[in-house]
Amino acid sequence: MSAPTGPDRSGAPPTSPRVTVISGGVGAARLLSGIVQVVEPAAVTAVVNTGDDTELHGLHVSPDLDTIVYTLANAIDPERGWGLVDETWRTMAALERYVAVRPDGSAAAPTWFNLGDHDLATHFYRTARLREGADLTTVTAEIATAWGLALRVLPMTDQRFRTRIETESDGLIDFQDYFVRLRHAVPVRRIEFDHDDARLTRQARAAIVDADVVLIAPSNPLVSVGPIRALPDVDALLRDRRDSVVAISPIVGGAALKGPADRMLTELGHEASVIGVASLYRDVASTLVIDRADTASAEQVRSAGMRCEVTDTVMSAPGVAAELARTAMAAALSG
Amino acid sequence: MSAPTGPDRSGAPPTSPRVTVISGGVGAARLLSGIVQVVEPAAVTAVVNTGDDTELHGLHVSPDLDTIVYTLANAIDPERGWGLVDETWRTMAALERYVAVRPDGSAAAPTWFNLGDHDLATHFYRTARLREGADLTTVTAEIATAWGLALRVLPMTDQRFRTRIETESDGLIDFQDYFVRLRHAVPVRRIEFDHDDARLTRQARAAIVDADVVLIAPSNPLVSVGPIRALPDVDALLRDRRDSVVAISPIVGGAALKGPADRMLTELGHEASVIGVASLYRDVASTLVIDRADTASAEQVRSAGMRCEVTDTVMSAPGVAAELARTAMAAALSG
Repeated sequence: MSAPTGPDRSGAPPTSPRVTVISGGVGAARLLSGIVQVVEPAAVTAVVNTGDDTELHGLHVSPDLDTIVYTLANAIDPERGWGLVDETWRTMAALERYVAVRPDGSAAAPTWFNLGDHDLATHFYRTARLREGADLTTVTAEIATAWGLALRVLPMTDQRFRTRIETESDGLIDFQDYFVRLRHAVPVRRIEFDHDDARLTRQARAAIVDADVVLIAPSNPLVSVGPIRALPDVDALLRDRRDSVVAISPIVGGAALKGPADRMLTELGHEASVIGVASLYRDVASTLVIDRADTASAEQVRSAGMRCEVTDTVMSAPGVAAELARTAMAAALSG
Repeated sequence: MSAPTGPDRSGAPPTSPRVTVISGGVGAARLLSGIVQVVEPAAVTAVVNTGDDTELHGLHVSPDLDTIVYTLANAIDPERGWGLVDETWRTMAALERYVAVRPDGSAAAPTWFNLGDHDLATHFYRTARLREGADLTTVTAEIATAWGLALRVLPMTDQRFRTRIETESDGLIDFQDYFVRLRHAVPVRRIEFDHDDARLTRQARAAIVDADVVLIAPSNPLVSVGPIRALPDVDALLRDRRDSVVAISPIVGGAALKGPADRMLTELGHEASVIGVASLYRDVASTLVIDRADTASAEQVRSAGMRCEVTDTVMSAPGVAAELARTAMAAALSG
């Protein structure tokens, strides 16, 4: 099969390969915005981590889902990488009045997790729909439609799933406590997935099984991709089609481009390198795409049992993301 | 006892009479702002209707409590009579995007109940504290403190209590559905108080029993004062001290100053007049304060078994509210 070409704008049924992306937040969102430049967006599905969903002020917040929707809608704040562009923070500012009277021991009015005034509407809608009994898959599809997206955005599960982090300093805490409140600046001892029999959704399962290509986004392997892989059968589904599963390393030159993946890998006994990434993914993916900065490690990745593609993986511009998407898909389709 | 005088600013313990006000929203808030001009604010307690509390977007909203706090903090919007002055509506505007995709049958993203960006912080704080297990009495005290209030603002109950309205057009609906969404423009057949054994709080009970004066604010007798009186023992507590309980008529010249009290009284078989108000209150209050517009009805109020004071009750200016407060308290103290 040849490498995918640009989107079909003729109105004919899409001929693009169907692509499913195992997704965390920012890295996945950037990869997806590369993919929709080179294939029909309607043929693209993101299966998204919900392990870092949280409840704030009574609202259901899904950071990775929102980062993907806002990014693909070209509404993400380009500097922060999260939240909406041209955002305002009036409610957050008004909360300070209450922080001042909050009794000892209370964590109400958390102001460490910024929710912008426009962004709040998304959490309001999601919360209200979930309370009406809609599942997160349905609500997420509605939100994606509201933002005019043609690609499918699927939460990994419709059930409650919470990633918790055991830290040296603060014990076992919610993921956002670790990631945002503590700015992921404390050593991690263990990751725990707190859920009650959560399952991959029917839609996400079909997206993994039926796709022509499955990509594992350059997201944190432990706390972004890890929760998805922790759901029953996911690793088996990937292994069954390993030849057309391609992972993109989130580690470049021994460091994470964003977030604590590098330190976390080291703290939990992995190597913070493309080799470490390869050993986490070799059972479920046939190919690892690494950055040119890691060219010297390509042979070692191959020795670990994966094919290895070397290209530019730092998606600092749309063209880089498109080229990375093209390379990863070509590798999967030639698998 | 003589009529109360101005606040004691000497630093000595307050010598003001202790005043408790049975309160709805706007009318009660204006009366309270008159009262704190003529007695020590620390001697004033509002026992406030929570029957029109509601849940929106997952947030616990207490309209009457907030109207009182914001009014007494001089932060209410003077034209609307509810919500904060200099408010913005960014989140509400952003919700429209989701209204456009909301499926048939869904009531998510309600945009008919306006929540301002600054106001939202209050609902965030209240919701978070309630979820932590704090009771509404405690949280309301914290909110009042955050706004620098010296008077005590007490919810009537810490338990769930919801006023529902049976309408001809829409059946049995939540109070805010009737009041805000339908702009109280539909005929009312019946009022229902939906609660599970709700009780007057210990603090509110003490405020009614221990006060020197109890005033019934010029609030809607059926849906603002009615829920408080529907709690067990409240009418008995008022009857026990009826001589020092004074009600202020919310009906002036046969019409409600604000809201649907006049139509609602008529629709539910009462008279929309000070006489109708007298027959609702004569068992629990010794005196009815009516407006000069109703001077001709004073004798009929007396015939109904109440003392009657005639004064200006339309609190269009702070001075009027203060004078009304003075008149009502004097009547109660001479009871």
